[in-house]
Amino acid sequence: MTNWTEIDEIAKKWIREAGTRIKQSMHESLTIETKSNPNDLVTNIDKETEKFFIERIQETFPGHRILGEEGQGDKLHSLEGVVWIIDPIDGTMNFVHQQRNFAISIGIFENGEGKIGLIYDVVHDELYHAFSGRGAYMNETKLAPLKETVIEEAILAINATWVTENRRIDSSVLAPLVKRVRGTRSYGSAALELANVAAGRIDAYITMRLAPWDYAAGCILLNEVGGIYSTIEGKPFSFLENHSVLAGNPSIHKTIFEEYLHAEK
Amino acid sequence: MTNWTEIDEIAKKWIREAGTRIKQSMHESLTIETKSNPNDLVTNIDKETEKFFIERIQETFPGHRILGEEGQGDKLHSLEGVVWIIDPIDGTMNFVHQQRNFAISIGIFENGEGKIGLIYDVVHDELYHAFSGRGAYMNETKLAPLKETVIEEAILAINATWVTENRRIDSSVLAPLVKRVRGTRSYGSAALELANVAAGRIDAYITMRLAPWDYAAGCILLNEVGGIYSTIEGKPFSFLENHSVLAGNPSIHKTIFEEYLHAEK
Repeated sequence: MTNWTEIDEIAKKWIREAGTRIKQSMHESLTIETKSNPNDLVTNIDKETEKFFIERIQETFPGHRILGEEGQGDKLHSLEGVVWIIDPIDGTMNFVHQQRNFAISIGIFENGEGKIGLIYDVVHDELYHAFSGRGAYMNETKLAPLKETVIEEAILAINATWVTENRRIDSSVLAPLVKRVRGTRSYGSAALELANVAAGRIDAYITMRLAPWDYAAGCILLNEVGGIYSTIEGKPFSFLENHSVLAGNPSIHKTIFEEYLHAEK
Repeated sequence: MTNWTEIDEIAKKWIREAGTRIKQSMHESLTIETKSNPNDLVTNIDKETEKFFIERIQETFPGHRILGEEGQGDKLHSLEGVVWIIDPIDGTMNFVHQQRNFAISIGIFENGEGKIGLIYDVVHDELYHAFSGRGAYMNETKLAPLKETVIEEAILAINATWVTENRRIDSSVLAPLVKRVRGTRSYGSAALELANVAAGRIDAYITMRLAPWDYAAGCILLNEVGGIYSTIEGKPFSFLENHSVLAGNPSIHKTIFEEYLHAEK
């Protein structure tokens, strides 16, 4: 039988260890390559950090499979068994430009069910962690269940891109929402935006395209505080495909979906 | 003769002391009033923090004048003599919703010339400080002169509001800029956005309306690292009036002004 408490302890130990390595490497010069576009920077540290996890997982838990952003893990077509979904550095642009505001994101699933979610804000030394059924925490502090809020008092995480002309959504759908909420924010790391939703600092987060490693851990955190997530079409997440993300407390998720996204269908 | 080194030491001591008081008060329940609109929250702590500075300045430096957001200071029509421009809590919405990502901002001027700039990110315990001619620092780390960058590789701090319909700027002016830069961010505290520009983490910041207490300290930091700031019309700042702000490294400020803002005149 899978010992989830052991996996949880080991995963937390590894994520902090990887964070320490990243901090040590940060003052060394970063060798930057460009992947598909200039927004998608990959650094050596990104690849090394993924390798760090893969080696340890394969050695300690040889039956587990790994889906990682840098593609050094397995090619997965299902979430059968135990699967680690890993983003070694979420918010690579922040990492390169700011040397802060990035995170290591790890979601661990059993037959498609989220068991452990870890998001580690390396520079601020804040580990958001959740274990299915045992609640979510930031370091030692338990995160409270999300409160219902009204849209006029909500803070929405949204990038300005989605209210300018783009190929994923009609910008006129979201513009009235941006006007209606109390304020908008954009931090540049999907994992940290989701952690902020789970911590109640942001009432909702909307973005048009994320990969599983961007949202996997965040969803497991959200499960533990009563957060709701779906694609902008209201569909559940596959955790294997790229898609849009609307995440928030239940009242704001409902309002945004019903009054803005669904209304446009 | 004014002893600026003494003022610098005392101001830094007071800002850290005020930060400690804010942290102590944070877990007490916040009594929130609404000023002119729901985006403009004022808390008791805001007013108390301003009072903290006013009392100390009046006692220690009786000749100095004070311009503060909460209006408990002096009514100023000029920057003659020594003037402290104070925002006790910049980013009040963050303070209320997030209990983080806010700052105390203090700019000290002599006959209109910026002498000392202090921005204190209370929760992260990061004090950005500059003394005219002696450089800018984050805690003990000296901030490097800003580098020239190209607009396609720049990170721009801009709120999504300014690319939706609004009464301050035609949203079609800034939308193409948002598409062209590498990425956009929005943190919800003008003082911290300017500190991030000064620290080189953000290449430019654009916003349509700030008060002097929002931008005063940030400009003094920018002076020390070669940052450029103006209104969106290219005018210098008065430090007495509300206006738009375009701040950035010299190359990005020039590109945004010449290719986007000035081009529309």
